[in-house]
Amino acid sequence: MSLLKPFDLSVYVITDTRLSRGRTNQEVILKAIAGGATCIQLREKDLSTREYFHMALALRELTLQHGVTFIINDRLDVALAVEADGVHLGEDDLPAAAARPIMPPEMILGVTARNVQQALQFQEAGASYLGVGSVFSTETKGNTGKPIGLQGLADIARRVKIPIVGIGGITAQRAGEVITAGASGVAVVSAVVSAPDLTGATREFAHAVSKARSQA
Amino acid sequence: MSLLKPFDLSVYVITDTRLSRGRTNQEVILKAIAGGATCIQLREKDLSTREYFHMALALRELTLQHGVTFIINDRLDVALAVEADGVHLGEDDLPAAAARPIMPPEMILGVTARNVQQALQFQEAGASYLGVGSVFSTETKGNTGKPIGLQGLADIARRVKIPIVGIGGITAQRAGEVITAGASGVAVVSAVVSAPDLTGATREFAHAVSKARSQA
Repeated sequence: MSLLKPFDLSVYVITDTRLSRGRTNQEVILKAIAGGATCIQLREKDLSTREYFHMALALRELTLQHGVTFIINDRLDVALAVEADGVHLGEDDLPAAAARPIMPPEMILGVTARNVQQALQFQEAGASYLGVGSVFSTETKGNTGKPIGLQGLADIARRVKIPIVGIGGITAQRAGEVITAGASGVAVVSAVVSAPDLTGATREFAHAVSKARSQA
Repeated sequence: MSLLKPFDLSVYVITDTRLSRGRTNQEVILKAIAGGATCIQLREKDLSTREYFHMALALRELTLQHGVTFIINDRLDVALAVEADGVHLGEDDLPAAAARPIMPPEMILGVTARNVQQALQFQEAGASYLGVGSVFSTETKGNTGKPIGLQGLADIARRVKIPIVGIGGITAQRAGEVITAGASGVAVVSAVVSAPDLTGATREFAHAVSKARSQA
């Protein structure tokens, strides 16, 4: 029934050049893909629109070549201009209900939700998936607020029909619990992009997700 | 032949709350409209997308009520979401050629041009009008670079078919010269939004533009 292209949230890597130890996003993403990343979100806060657009264009090319889902944080116009697979909107970005009507129906709309009420509201507004968290406590800038825990995530997963991805403080050691609690995938920033062995770090997440699923 | 809604660039007022002496954009715009502003551009650089969206929504309502053209700076997604009449793109924003294909054909695309080569390029890319300048030297942040002068503006006006609006350092005293040089209107920031008598300041520009046209 869905017009959406299939997408795989299993290992969802979010960029942040401030945390990438001097590596470019191209390098970070290629290494993450080599380790099994299934979805890449471009998120950079300190660029002009023109710079963000050019970075998005380069990463769109790269993710297409590798068959990986490509999502742009915040900027729906940039996502439309580079034909990204989707856009992810947080609480400081366009409201989901304002964004959905100006998006092609097949385009993926991800929205950040912190509780069941928001989750139901964003599902109703046309979200394709929800980023749910913070699951655990985290130091990554922009992921603030009290952690909702595995129970908070499970509550949301039970109430919505769309897939959810856990975000916030998730380590490879705890990724399995997040899947078992009802998430379709785990979203990570620093645990991957700051890792000296970025491919190895991503692979640990991919293994943990697979293992949790096979035990379900 | 054009799909575009008619628009009137004659007195084109650009917001900047940093320069508005503590007045809200709603107040600034109502006073500018009372003085004869024909086009309003929302330009604010220090807001989150969510804040920009809510401000744009309020100003869309207000400009519709008064039959004034409403343009959003930089954020095409916000412009689409609030159904603004158009978007204005500068050199740090989305490239015109990337924006036009994701815009409804009747939506206005304004682009900043500094010389004939850019002007022809942006016309070709589907610009509806050009913001040309800086015409004179200016202190307003964001309008940097050597002034192109009335001659630079006239050179561009002669070479393109789309209307142009002069911007940068234009006072009511010199607005007439800008029209005579070939512009369809004058764009102003501080000369209007910083004026203690904002309506009176706008009216001076409106009179100067009308007078220059009647003498053409």
